[in-house]
Amino acid sequence: MTRIALAVDLGGTKVEAALVDGDGAVVTASRNRQPTGPELTPDRLRSAVADVVSRALAHLPEGAEFVGAGIGSAGPIDLVEGTIRPVNLRGVHGFGLVEAVRDAVIASTGQFDPTVRLRHDGGCLALAESWIGAAAGARASLSFVVSTGVGGGIVIDGRAIGGASGNAGHLGQMHVGELTVEEISSGPSSVRWAQLQGWHGETGEDLARASARGDRIARAAIERSAKTLGQALADASSLLDLEVIAVSGGFSAVSDDYVDLVAGSLREWAVLPYAQRTRVVRSALGGDGPIIGAAALVLRG
Amino acid sequence: MTRIALAVDLGGTKVEAALVDGDGAVVTASRNRQPTGPELTPDRLRSAVADVVSRALAHLPEGAEFVGAGIGSAGPIDLVEGTIRPVNLRGVHGFGLVEAVRDAVIASTGQFDPTVRLRHDGGCLALAESWIGAAAGARASLSFVVSTGVGGGIVIDGRAIGGASGNAGHLGQMHVGELTVEEISSGPSSVRWAQLQGWHGETGEDLARASARGDRIARAAIERSAKTLGQALADASSLLDLEVIAVSGGFSAVSDDYVDLVAGSLREWAVLPYAQRTRVVRSALGGDGPIIGAAALVLRG
Repeated sequence: MTRIALAVDLGGTKVEAALVDGDGAVVTASRNRQPTGPELTPDRLRSAVADVVSRALAHLPEGAEFVGAGIGSAGPIDLVEGTIRPVNLRGVHGFGLVEAVRDAVIASTGQFDPTVRLRHDGGCLALAESWIGAAAGARASLSFVVSTGVGGGIVIDGRAIGGASGNAGHLGQMHVGELTVEEISSGPSSVRWAQLQGWHGETGEDLARASARGDRIARAAIERSAKTLGQALADASSLLDLEVIAVSGGFSAVSDDYVDLVAGSLREWAVLPYAQRTRVVRSALGGDGPIIGAAALVLRG
Repeated sequence: MTRIALAVDLGGTKVEAALVDGDGAVVTASRNRQPTGPELTPDRLRSAVADVVSRALAHLPEGAEFVGAGIGSAGPIDLVEGTIRPVNLRGVHGFGLVEAVRDAVIASTGQFDPTVRLRHDGGCLALAESWIGAAAGARASLSFVVSTGVGGGIVIDGRAIGGASGNAGHLGQMHVGELTVEEISSGPSSVRWAQLQGWHGETGEDLARASARGDRIARAAIERSAKTLGQALADASSLLDLEVIAVSGGFSAVSDDYVDLVAGSLREWAVLPYAQRTRVVRSALGGDGPIIGAAALVLRG
């Protein structure tokens, strides 16, 4: 019998749901989304969740075993309470996302007490990469996104490391010098820095094109982003003895050698041989990581 | 029946062995040591291990259940090979410490295939603090020593986090600015910094006395050490969502408020609420942490 999980991914711009099977394949037709954004209220989030969950579950194959729902949410979250406090969704701080998903699943499936598990999206991403992605087989891995923010998750011996309240993996809030990694390496931070040096573009895509054309400021902004990440990742690897680091997110596509720049910087800053050995690779899952990982929360123990 | 483990702790100045019971109590009479040091050779280490192990096991109580041997070693180590590469014991890099302890246990007990487990000493310390020490009951903790070096270990959900090769917990090799934490916060680094500012003492103890007398350079050196640690620990807590951080080691006694200074700096540098909540406390086990934790490797699954 095919095992199927519902995966829900809540982010700063959308909430998405899809069915995922026991091999980590997304049931394409089931995938659907609703917008979120900074004006989101608890009531609107509750109805958006009900909507995307019921649409996804309408595609549950006849005879499939429904194993429950996994949720990835923008962080921070509170695993003990099952609530969320996403930095970019201030209107829904304290929202009971676990309960909202459970109610929606009960309404669609008629199940009495479905399994529902929550992690922050970075933790889900890391679980997906260690399951069927770039970190498969690694004893210790960190997978992260560099985009409008910088965040990720950690998997050790097959387990997603949650920490005290489920928030382990917030790489973007580590410091390099006085600033956080996110304040230096994210797409918007890199664009802003380039603008302060006299560059005239507006977006990460502009930065990519300008750098490809030989613009020296754009190139410097990209190198600054990647090298700062490598510096923080060297510390993460010293602390966690990581085997693999998987990089994803829109801004990591800003140049072909972005991942190599990160890896070179990590090797330069890592002090001990085990940390210098950490491999830095591109994500194998791209944007599907968080949704596949949310499903993994219930498909894999 | 009383369960008893053999614990072996290898450090830069000594190798020590003792028996530890199922409640984490050290069998005092069994505790004994041999010197190590930078000139240590593989042959001398092998005979020192044989000696301390046989002396400890001579105290095995009649009728006790011997559950195996746990080893804590100065890092780095290689868990896969069972070998060690301690920074301060260059002559024994690649030494098969697991095999040496196993041979010594077989010689003393006649057991055919005793359980022998290895971690670096920081991992053992953290396991002990989370078992019967200052981090007992915490879902996620980091315990560390600030002494001639800075190093520790991480325990999440009761499991000592090893990482890819067993070296997770090397806090001292994280960076604050251009330098590592160890290069700023260790006892010798703090003394050296004070001397460069014109202070005339020689040791951490001198620094403690001078600061207590009101010497401003000595006090500044102590604050620099503690605040740098807090800064790195803020990053560690962002990354790992730590509930408790336990501080031990000789240099942490350099002033009564040392742990408070660390805690204040952590709160100042931690960005997200969950990381600001991390409690920083003094170790409950003092110098016994590594030996109790080595025993915990075999006493606790």
